[in-house]
Amino acid sequence: MLDELRKTVCNANKELQKQNLVLYSFGNVSAIDRNSNTVAIKPSGVPYDQLTPDKIVLLDLDGNAAEGSLNPSSDTPTHLELYRNFRDIGAICHTHSSYATIWAQACTEIPCFGTTHADNFFGPVPVTKQLSKNQIEDNYELNTGRIIVERFRKINPLQTPAVLVANHGPFTWAETPQKAVKNAVILEEIAKTALGTITINPKQKQIDNTLLEKHFLRKHGKNSYYGQK
Amino acid sequence: MLDELRKTVCNANKELQKQNLVLYSFGNVSAIDRNSNTVAIKPSGVPYDQLTPDKIVLLDLDGNAAEGSLNPSSDTPTHLELYRNFRDIGAICHTHSSYATIWAQACTEIPCFGTTHADNFFGPVPVTKQLSKNQIEDNYELNTGRIIVERFRKINPLQTPAVLVANHGPFTWAETPQKAVKNAVILEEIAKTALGTITINPKQKQIDNTLLEKHFLRKHGKNSYYGQK
Amino acid sequence: MLDELRKTVCNANKELQKQNLVLYSFGNVSAIDRNSNTVAIKPSGVPYDQLTPDKIVLLDLDGNAAEGSLNPSSDTPTHLELYRNFRDIGAICHTHSSYATIWAQACTEIPCFGTTHADNFFGPVPVTKQLSKNQIEDNYELNTGRIIVERFRKINPLQTPAVLVANHGPFTWAETPQKAVKNAVILEEIAKTALGTITINPKQKQIDNTLLEKHFLRKHGKNSYYGQK
Amino acid sequence: MLDELRKTVCNANKELQKQNLVLYSFGNVSAIDRNSNTVAIKPSGVPYDQLTPDKIVLLDLDGNAAEGSLNPSSDTPTHLELYRNFRDIGAICHTHSSYATIWAQACTEIPCFGTTHADNFFGPVPVTKQLSKNQIEDNYELNTGRIIVERFRKINPLQTPAVLVANHGPFTWAETPQKAVKNAVILEEIAKTALGTITINPKQKQIDNTLLEKHFLRKHGKNSYYGQK
Repeated sequence: MLDELRKTVCNANKELQKQNLVLYSFGNVSAIDRNSNTVAIKPSGVPYDQLTPDKIVLLDLDGNAAEGSLNPSSDTPTHLELYRNFRDIGAICHTHSSYATIWAQACTEIPCFGTTHADNFFGPVPVTKQLSKNQIEDNYELNTGRIIVERFRKINPLQTPAVLVANHGPFTWAETPQKAVKNAVILEEIAKTALGTITINPKQKQIDNTLLEKHFLRKHGKNSYYGQK
Repeated sequence: MLDELRKTVCNANKELQKQNLVLYSFGNVSAIDRNSNTVAIKPSGVPYDQLTPDKIVLLDLDGNAAEGSLNPSSDTPTHLELYRNFRDIGAICHTHSSYATIWAQACTEIPCFGTTHADNFFGPVPVTKQLSKNQIEDNYELNTGRIIVERFRKINPLQTPAVLVANHGPFTWAETPQKAVKNAVILEEIAKTALGTITINPKQKQIDNTLLEKHFLRKHGKNSYYGQK
Repeated sequence: MLDELRKTVCNANKELQKQNLVLYSFGNVSAIDRNSNTVAIKPSGVPYDQLTPDKIVLLDLDGNAAEGSLNPSSDTPTHLELYRNFRDIGAICHTHSSYATIWAQACTEIPCFGTTHADNFFGPVPVTKQLSKNQIEDNYELNTGRIIVERFRKINPLQTPAVLVANHGPFTWAETPQKAVKNAVILEEIAKTALGTITINPKQKQIDNTLLEKHFLRKHGKNSYYGQK
Repeated sequence: MLDELRKTVCNANKELQKQNLVLYSFGNVSAIDRNSNTVAIKPSGVPYDQLTPDKIVLLDLDGNAAEGSLNPSSDTPTHLELYRNFRDIGAICHTHSSYATIWAQACTEIPCFGTTHADNFFGPVPVTKQLSKNQIEDNYELNTGRIIVERFRKINPLQTPAVLVANHGPFTWAETPQKAVKNAVILEEIAKTALGTITINPKQKQIDNTLLEKHFLRKHGKNSYYGQK
C-alpha cells in the first residue's frame, strides 16, 4: 500500500519535469493515504532524474518521519496544513511554472476568460494575501498553508483545485497525484492565455456565470456528459 | 470507404498533438463522407495516443451513432451544424491552441496584418457574438454551431476557413482533415504574430485589399500560380 | 559545380525547418554562381522533407529555367532583382519567422538595442515602404525586389544583410546559403529581444554609434579579432 | 589538475547549448584554479559541438596563454577582471540568453518579484552603467569588467551572482562552472517571469526584505535548511 503510494508520488514528481513545469529541483508532489494518515512527499533538493520510490519520504500528519528518511521538501508544512483542512483532497502539487508564477508575482488572481479555464476551475484562480513579517519569520511554510486555507474559507477546494501564493507561485491539488499534476499543466496554460487576453484587452471581463457553470458541470458532477462512462 | 474515413480522421486527431495544438484530450477533428452523409469524429475524452481508427465514432447528420459506439466528442452538435450549413467543407478541426484562444477570449477578430495571413485567410478571422443565457442552457453545442453559421452569413467559409468562438477557442475547416489541421496550425501562427504586431503598434491597420487579394489568389482559385501543377 | 550548388541550396532550405524558421513550405533559400550567372532556388510549394538536390531549380538571371524543371519559388523574381543589384551577395533566404514577421507586419524597423544585434547587423534592420496598388497588381514579386533595392540606396547590403518587407516578412542574404540562413536565425532572435525591450521601455533609444562600430568591426573587416584566423 | 579544469569548462560550455541559452557560438564559460591562478576559457568562435577539452585555452591572470593555444574568447579580459576582483568566485558564464538580454537592452535591473528570484539572488539583479566613448574605444572588454566591478562595490558577488551589462547581456558566476551555468539558467527564468509580471502590473513593487531574507537564507549560509546535508 505505502509502496504503491511512494511509486505513484515518485512518478508524479518526474512528470513535473516532462511537462516543463520545473527547473532543476524547484517543485514537489505529495499524496496522502487517508486510512493511515500517511503523507508521501519528495525529498528536499533531489533532482527529478535521481528520484526513486525509496527516496520518497513518508510522514504522519504532524510531520514526523520514519528514522533514516531523507529530509522532506522544505514546503512540507504547507502540504500538511492543506491535508488537515481540505479533507477531500488526496494529492498536492507545487511548482514555479512560468506563467502561473507571473500571476502570483503580480499578486493578481487569474480571471476566468474562457472555457478552457471553466472546464477545469470553477471561477477565478484565487491569490492569497501576503504574509506579515511575523508570519514569515516564524513557521513560514506552515503559515503559507494557513493563508491558503484562509483564502478558501468560502471556496470548495475540489471545484477550484489551484491557488496562487502571492509573490511565490502555484499550488494545485486533486484526488490523485496524476490529477494534481494535470491541474498544474492546465493552470499554466490558462495563465499563459489570460496574460495574452489582457494584452489585447486590458479591461476584458470574466465570462458570465451561465457559461462558467455550463462548462464546469459538463465535465464534473452527476450531470456531466464529457468523456466515456 | 468508411474505414478509410476513420483512419484519416484518427491520423488527423493525432496530428493535433504532434503540432502542439492541444493539451491532453482538448481538441477534435471530424470529417464527412458527403455521399452517405456519414460523419466520423473523435470519441469524447480519449487521449490521442490511445486513439485507434476503430474508436472513431460514425454518425449521421442528425447525430445518430451506430450501436456500441463510444460517446462522440461533446462538441459533435457544433460539427454537425457546420456540415449541414457549409456544404462545401469536408472536415472540421477544433482546438484550444494558445494564441488563437487568446484572441477568442479577448472576443476580438484577428485583423489581417500580413501576407502569411492573406495567403491562407481571405480577410480577418471573425469572432462570433457571445451566446445568450438561454442559448447556453439549452442545446449549447448546437447553438455554438448556429452562431458560427450566423457569423458567416456574408462570408465564404472556404475562403475564410476559420472562426473564433467568443470566450472559447478556434474552429477551422477544409476539404480534408489534413488541410483542416493545417489551417489550425497556420491560424495559431497568425494569432501569435498579430498579438506581437499590436504590441509594437496598437493602432496598426489591416493590409489593403489589393495586397490581400494578390496573396490569397496567388494560392487559391483558377489564376493561382503557387506550387506545382 | 552546379551539382554542388544544388546540394548546398537543398541543405540550406532543409536547415530552415531545423531552425524552426518556417511552417510547411513557407520559406526559400537560393544561391548564385556568379561565373555562370546561374541561380539555384527551391521549387514552389514543395515540403522541406521531400526536397532533394535534383528538385532544386536552376535559372539564369532573367528567370529562364531549363526545360523540365519544377516551378521555382513564387518569390523568384524578388531573389533575381536582389542578385542583379547586390553584386557581392551569393545567397538569399526568405522566411516568415514569427518575430521578424511581427516587426514587418508592424511596418517598423528593428532598432539596434544591443550588442547581439551590433555583432551581426551594422545598424537598424530597415523596413521597406509599402507597395502601391499598381506595384502589387503588376509584377508583384519583381516590385518587392525593387522596393528592397530602393531602401538600400544608402546602405551596404553586406553590412546590413537583412530587410523587412512591410506587411510581409524578412529577407536575409550573405556570401553563402549557410550564412544567409544563419543571418535569418540571428534576425529572429534580435527581433524577439527587441520586442521585449520596448515592452519594458517603449522609449528605449538605440545604442550609440561607438558601441555599434566596436561590436560590428570586432567581427567583420580587416581589424576584426573574433574567432580563429 | 588542469586537465580536469579543461574538461569541466568544456562540459559547462556544452551545457549552455543544451539549456538553450545560446545561438551558434554566442556565449562562454571559464573557470579559475586559484592555486596556480590559471584560467581556462572557451576559444573564440568555436561551435559548442566542435568543442573538446584540448581546445580550451589556459591563461594566467594577466591574459598570457601558452604558445600554440587557440585564441581565447574575445570576452576574456572581462572574465579576468572579474577573477582579479571577486576573489571568492571560481567560474564565470556569459550568454546572450533572450530574456536576460531583453532586460540588459532595456538598461533596467531585474526587480525581485518573487521567491524563485529570492531563492537564488539576494536582491535585484543589477545593471551596469553604460560605457563612455573612450571606454569603448580602448580596452573595451577590460572596461566591461571594470564597470561590473564598480557596480558591485556595495554588493556581495556570491550573494548576487549575476549582472546585466547595459546594452549587452548577462554575466553569472559561482564557485564552479556547473553552478555558474545553473545561475544563468535561473536568471533567464526570472527575467522571463519578471517581464510577465510588469506586463500585468507595471507598478508592481519588489517583495519585502523579510521574505527576501527568508528565502535566500533558507537555501544559503549556516542556517539553511533546504536540501540534504
